[in-house]
Amino acid sequence: MDKRTKFTLDEEEIPRYWYNIQADLPEPLPAALHPATGKPLKPEDLAPLFPMELIKQEVSTERWIEIPDEVRDIYRLWRPTTLYRAHRLEKALDTPAKIFYKYEGTSPPGSHKPNTAVAQAYYNKQEGVKRMVTETGAGQWGSALSFGGACFNLEIKVYMVKISYNQKPYRRIMMETWGAKCIPSPSSDTKAGRDMLAKDPDCPGSLGLAISEAVEDTVSHDDTHYAIGSVLNHVLLHQTVNGLEAKKLMEKANAYPDIIVGCIGGGSNFAGLYLPFVKDKLDGMKPSLRIINVEPASCPSVTKGPYAYDFGDEAGLAPIIKMFTLGHGFIPPPIHAGGLRYHGMAPIICHLCKLGFVEARAEHQLATFEAGVTFARTQGIISAPEPNHAIKVVIDEALKCKESGESKTILLAHSGHGHVDMAAYDAYLSGKLQDYEYPTEKIEEALAQLPKVG
Amino acid sequence: MDKRTKFTLDEEEIPRYWYNIQADLPEPLPAALHPATGKPLKPEDLAPLFPMELIKQEVSTERWIEIPDEVRDIYRLWRPTTLYRAHRLEKALDTPAKIFYKYEGTSPPGSHKPNTAVAQAYYNKQEGVKRMVTETGAGQWGSALSFGGACFNLEIKVYMVKISYNQKPYRRIMMETWGAKCIPSPSSDTKAGRDMLAKDPDCPGSLGLAISEAVEDTVSHDDTHYAIGSVLNHVLLHQTVNGLEAKKLMEKANAYPDIIVGCIGGGSNFAGLYLPFVKDKLDGMKPSLRIINVEPASCPSVTKGPYAYDFGDEAGLAPIIKMFTLGHGFIPPPIHAGGLRYHGMAPIICHLCKLGFVEARAEHQLATFEAGVTFARTQGIISAPEPNHAIKVVIDEALKCKESGESKTILLAHSGHGHVDMAAYDAYLSGKLQDYEYPTEKIEEALAQLPKVG
Repeated sequence: MDKRTKFTLDEEEIPRYWYNIQADLPEPLPAALHPATGKPLKPEDLAPLFPMELIKQEVSTERWIEIPDEVRDIYRLWRPTTLYRAHRLEKALDTPAKIFYKYEGTSPPGSHKPNTAVAQAYYNKQEGVKRMVTETGAGQWGSALSFGGACFNLEIKVYMVKISYNQKPYRRIMMETWGAKCIPSPSSDTKAGRDMLAKDPDCPGSLGLAISEAVEDTVSHDDTHYAIGSVLNHVLLHQTVNGLEAKKLMEKANAYPDIIVGCIGGGSNFAGLYLPFVKDKLDGMKPSLRIINVEPASCPSVTKGPYAYDFGDEAGLAPIIKMFTLGHGFIPPPIHAGGLRYHGMAPIICHLCKLGFVEARAEHQLATFEAGVTFARTQGIISAPEPNHAIKVVIDEALKCKESGESKTILLAHSGHGHVDMAAYDAYLSGKLQDYEYPTEKIEEALAQLPKVG
Repeated sequence: MDKRTKFTLDEEEIPRYWYNIQADLPEPLPAALHPATGKPLKPEDLAPLFPMELIKQEVSTERWIEIPDEVRDIYRLWRPTTLYRAHRLEKALDTPAKIFYKYEGTSPPGSHKPNTAVAQAYYNKQEGVKRMVTETGAGQWGSALSFGGACFNLEIKVYMVKISYNQKPYRRIMMETWGAKCIPSPSSDTKAGRDMLAKDPDCPGSLGLAISEAVEDTVSHDDTHYAIGSVLNHVLLHQTVNGLEAKKLMEKANAYPDIIVGCIGGGSNFAGLYLPFVKDKLDGMKPSLRIINVEPASCPSVTKGPYAYDFGDEAGLAPIIKMFTLGHGFIPPPIHAGGLRYHGMAPIICHLCKLGFVEARAEHQLATFEAGVTFARTQGIISAPEPNHAIKVVIDEALKCKESGESKTILLAHSGHGHVDMAAYDAYLSGKLQDYEYPTEKIEEALAQLPKVG
């Protein structure tokens, strides 16, 4: 038996280019629309929020976009990340399947998020920006941008949804340790926040409101830009550094996946891993490769939502994009996988899904934690609630192989550790965790509010 | 400039042997004594607690002890660990010093502890033991043994000091996720615990009492052994896997340290890193190499304690060993570096210190967190409070190089991350953290209680 457990690259092998799938799509992405006018979005519409280099990347059709040396130098702190063979999980499942996982949990903030946070901080620094503002829900993205800001001496301010701010103090303290300012939203720092506090001083906040506060803060300050942690094309682009490494590493392991599995919230983690493999499908080289996007059963945008134009954010300030959506007003049930509680999905993923190159599946929370505990007891890593969704599907596919006797190769995109999510494991282990029904009525209500465009 | 940030080994390069310094000591270690009789300890005295293979290792004078394949196979999950060059810290300090760190934070429990936990679990499994019991303070060791138990299907029970059990639930949940049982001490599961609860139902517990409970539980159950996380020779032996890797990696970096720095509580982490380098000093090859053991100023056993025979545990049940000690009855102030709150020190470290091969220094808590924040903002990693003590000294030595213009090579033993210690950073960043005076009176009292032996 091949005992090798880890496949690694030297830091000189960190990719020099990100891969831009827009160069290879058989049909271009549907245009993004301006949230106020409903007309196709122009680059200058985004200029108050993003540096020009990122706006160019958002619409570029160049296949390879060079990773600046300054960004690669920061990547060296934790990249390339390791590809693992899950021998102990395979043995526990008694499956002939070969299970691999590419693990992003060794980055300083513990997830894939800094792959784009560092790049965004760099381009902003280059264009003379002194300060960046963002919002965060559970805190993964906010802590990644705080780390990115520390790398380039940028002032970072994070509006964190108040209920998470109070429930997850460890994420807030991480941001502060990297020098960022993190405040609960609604706050008195913006008109949007003050208006809400006047209406309801005990408002627990929402991601939509936090976005409104971050955007208002951005446009009302000089030298300030906004940053986004997923969904948009340039974010997925930056995450392809992970997939390009994964391709090289699978070669080192003398393997090519039959199935690739990952979790999707906004979609940047998993798309970052699989887009370089999708290229093989677009080129006709790997027609049988299956790519399974896993989402929560309580927030099933791709598996249950219509493919429609909708606002990217709950507040209706962000561009209108074509995607599988549950409606921008939909508030998902309070599952522990905070990173998967998004009403829509990255346009690139939706487009590939519509064209039939990738598929989607939805899983319930309890089963994902059961899978996560199995993973921890075999492979050691205690995973975040988000990748537990993917682990559930990996185990299902491996058990199918056991039944059929097939020795398929499965590649898991593992987005990060769960060290600051232990309360969720406590709830699971003590029997207090619950599943949520598919919230049919709430989704119907939200879908009735889709913008009338496109 | 050499841009390389990381130096790595292939998993086939995980050492095949642990290095046993007892083969090379110019004078043998002073004998350990029986806690009840004060007579030299015999191997059979330890048989109720440990498997014979570990008892043999405790007193062995063989230079190289083979690492079993089954243990190396588990090590593959995260070993070999990476050696980093701290370019960004060097630049921030504007120092000509070259700073390297060997980082143990990527193990599943997040520290060096599983290096021995996995080995101890393996030898117990080999000898037919079904169940292992231990105590834990802040929870690092308890979670490492829980992971070790999961690797070899052993039942694990951890008595966790009640005040930590209540204050640090994340560590307890980690243990449960790996399948262990963790209960607060004092507990009603042992006579020692019940006696204490009868006296004081609100007793916050202590490490001494937790040891008493773990030992009582061990000797009153069949198929059960005890496990210890530091101090003893076999624990330091297992940790040399890290130092042997570090030596190979420094060669890859074309460097040899002038100064090695690490933190010491029981001493196993740092000794594990430096013992293979001490061999070079014993061989006369590197007389100028300095090895600096860093301890807390509020628990300064090596820098302020006498070299005397004392009980290894607060309760007086563990063997009597010769070490620098503050007295087994000394309760250190409640600093956040829980892993450094031990009254004594590993006999091997004390012996090497007495013989002049290594030195010690004590640091105050506030300064160590200041150093930890500098490290986080340059190198990304948020460190546990324990290694922050070592980082403080590394920064001091690097700044001395800046003054003198010397380009010394400094190697830091970085024992792990601080993801579950964020409350300590919060206290520091919000100005609520305090230093503690050297507790002269309490130490004098404790030293008056040293056993009359030796």
